[in-house]
Amino acid sequence: MFKSGLNFRRPPNVVGAMSRFCTKSSVDSIAGSSHDVSAKQQLFMTDPVSPGSVFFLPNGAKIFNKLVNFMKLQQENKFGFQEVITPLIYRKSLWEQSGHWENYKEDMFRVEGQDLKKEEYGLKPMNCPGHCMVFKRFARSYNELPLKYSDFSPLHRNEASGALSGLTRVRKFHQDDGHIFCTPDQVESEITKCIKMLDLCYTKVFPLGPGNTPTNYELRLSTRPEHFVGDISVWNHAESILEGILNKSGKVWSINAGDGAFYGPKIDVLLADHNNKLHQVATIQLDFQLPERFDLKYKDKDNTFKRPIMIHRAVFGSVERFMAMLIDSNEGKWPFWLNPHQCMIVPLNTKNKALVDKANDLARALRGEDIPADEPVKLNSFHFNVDIDDRAEPTGYRIKEAIEKNYSFLIMVGAKEIESGRYAIRTRESRDLEHLTLDEIILKFSSLESNYK
Amino acid sequence: MFKSGLNFRRPPNVVGAMSRFCTKSSVDSIAGSSHDVSAKQQLFMTDPVSPGSVFFLPNGAKIFNKLVNFMKLQQENKFGFQEVITPLIYRKSLWEQSGHWENYKEDMFRVEGQDLKKEEYGLKPMNCPGHCMVFKRFARSYNELPLKYSDFSPLHRNEASGALSGLTRVRKFHQDDGHIFCTPDQVESEITKCIKMLDLCYTKVFPLGPGNTPTNYELRLSTRPEHFVGDISVWNHAESILEGILNKSGKVWSINAGDGAFYGPKIDVLLADHNNKLHQVATIQLDFQLPERFDLKYKDKDNTFKRPIMIHRAVFGSVERFMAMLIDSNEGKWPFWLNPHQCMIVPLNTKNKALVDKANDLARALRGEDIPADEPVKLNSFHFNVDIDDRAEPTGYRIKEAIEKNYSFLIMVGAKEIESGRYAIRTRESRDLEHLTLDEIILKFSSLESNYK
Repeated sequence: MFKSGLNFRRPPNVVGAMSRFCTKSSVDSIAGSSHDVSAKQQLFMTDPVSPGSVFFLPNGAKIFNKLVNFMKLQQENKFGFQEVITPLIYRKSLWEQSGHWENYKEDMFRVEGQDLKKEEYGLKPMNCPGHCMVFKRFARSYNELPLKYSDFSPLHRNEASGALSGLTRVRKFHQDDGHIFCTPDQVESEITKCIKMLDLCYTKVFPLGPGNTPTNYELRLSTRPEHFVGDISVWNHAESILEGILNKSGKVWSINAGDGAFYGPKIDVLLADHNNKLHQVATIQLDFQLPERFDLKYKDKDNTFKRPIMIHRAVFGSVERFMAMLIDSNEGKWPFWLNPHQCMIVPLNTKNKALVDKANDLARALRGEDIPADEPVKLNSFHFNVDIDDRAEPTGYRIKEAIEKNYSFLIMVGAKEIESGRYAIRTRESRDLEHLTLDEIILKFSSLESNYK
Repeated sequence: MFKSGLNFRRPPNVVGAMSRFCTKSSVDSIAGSSHDVSAKQQLFMTDPVSPGSVFFLPNGAKIFNKLVNFMKLQQENKFGFQEVITPLIYRKSLWEQSGHWENYKEDMFRVEGQDLKKEEYGLKPMNCPGHCMVFKRFARSYNELPLKYSDFSPLHRNEASGALSGLTRVRKFHQDDGHIFCTPDQVESEITKCIKMLDLCYTKVFPLGPGNTPTNYELRLSTRPEHFVGDISVWNHAESILEGILNKSGKVWSINAGDGAFYGPKIDVLLADHNNKLHQVATIQLDFQLPERFDLKYKDKDNTFKRPIMIHRAVFGSVERFMAMLIDSNEGKWPFWLNPHQCMIVPLNTKNKALVDKANDLARALRGEDIPADEPVKLNSFHFNVDIDDRAEPTGYRIKEAIEKNYSFLIMVGAKEIESGRYAIRTRESRDLEHLTLDEIILKFSSLESNYK
């Protein structure tokens, strides 16, 4: 099922150059299975007109948007991030200042207008320089720090065309990207929060371990490489902070000696797939370099200007790849909240028009589409992905097919159900029936979706 | 306040070429005022490193995201659209097939890798060819039609650098884009629905008329131009359908004779700014051409393959420009649901620690941040933009400043409020006080936000 290989990885001599610049999710070796599930569920497609760029079909876009919404809510309302929306193309001069043009050029797409002047741009492979521009624009004070920007921009990296595949070897992808600008004193607490965040994500919300147990993720501390910038004392201090945090976390972690970025040490997060093969997803990187290159500063309590420290972090890493990891774990059996096929309604007698009409009313109500014609659909309202199977096929056959299509719930509508106002509902996994009113079903579904179940 | 000029408009000889390809929101003449409001409220910034691309700062990103969320909910749950997420760069061959390379090249950015092969791409100025690729991928049947895709991708058009300004003359922008693939029989009902949708938007949700009255928008029917493709009988039929729909709509409309696109007639929607100057926002365009160029087909009831008709439509048009129209109308006094400054909490005695603590608890609750440490923030939960002013300044001064900053609500917290559990709350516009419990305030705010007030 899984082709092994490398993603976001250039020939050996370029790997170092890449990892110097927040190459979140840089090592990968899964692919394939997402294709099988996607073909069945119409999640995404690819086409030679845009190699390495995924077309998310409606079902895939639903999952993608839910994942992004989850992450935005956590980042903004629990971890103090503020979302920004930044440009995709920047003049060459910016990439020269950031160092990308020198170290990362081969992985970038060049952009230019058709006009005579032909200004030269780079299509962004990362958000960090754009966030530095936002930081730099305003006079910054110590009391604004830590300042945390998040961004879900599409990113482009010019991967070799031979390696492109599905959701994992792509040229266009989205990170749940974030940059923290902070003081040296804040590094420890901020990184602790980053670990808390990924713990929330991988332990609570995405139990990717066997049988829905918390995800078995590993932390790796990558330390000072042979070629580095800055003082050794600063490095030692930074490494000891990271070590202390990792020890306190109670998590399994190991050292990857000498594999840090040239600007600072980093913590990479590795997830096991169903073959126990590890894939890098999240990352937390300390950066003393970009703040220097962009001459970022803030006014400290003592009225002197100081250089902030930058932390690059992502929790999913690439949203596309994270979707592939989810598919690897669930094989298309999405949890309810992510399922593009949340509920199938099966009218028991498809020749009975009143019964089929009732089934349709039920579907409209669960889709949240029963809204007066001249009223807008309300903000923050629930809209479940509900279908009806009213084909003139035996009930057992329709139920079996819905289960094969991985619908989370099945609702059976018969004369008895209409009379009592209580519908027979069962899950994908169990034949046990509950009998619930429409309101009770809405409450049940809303609670599952609200709580990421 | 308003610089006049043209946006998305090329030298005269190119205007026609552009309007042939769904140049939604192609005429514009506002700018400027959004700069003033943005400077005060930190909504967005621009920078020479990316001319014509807006950096949305946190407050601007909040408004942008709310607008997009509103539109997604209406499109998906009321008007039958399905969101897709499509690539940004496509090989030259696609643009040749669509006709853009021939007719639109000057407005497009070229993209290429740094590798030897240097494949040539175009950065998309429109979503239509991508949606044609999705339509074409699967065998389509008449019973799937109308098939409606929506897309909020960033689009790039290489406007002349001299004309770039703020939110209105941009190179990167987002449309609330949608394409309807339908049968000839469905054209009328689909266009009627498009008009209903923009009516809902401009009459109900965005009352941009004087004193918050429904927006005074105008409809223009652009008819067969001198140079056209197709049969005159088809044109006459199409024009009479559009006329019939416009007459039934009860709206003011006029004919713009001979200004249709070469592939079909269109309805443009014009909004008046506070100077009664008209700006094109929404558009509804009939297209017989792209389905031909991409050889799109569906299997009809009689088992023969037929060509679908394509309707290009946008309601906001450019989300960026629509924000500028909102600012023109509200001058920074955002309605509650869009306001990045929804509520200011003013502790009456800032030396009383218990009181300031209580004010902070209140803020956390209204922000929806009072969540157990190991629990995620729930999906579809409310999070109001609430600040505290606990500076050691006179209460009257702090209230005055919050009003000047256009906070929708002010909550005063004193000893009496804490004792009774009822907080004194007032609006931006009126000194009248209500005394509400926290639950009542949350209910009030949630209701306003849910209903786009």
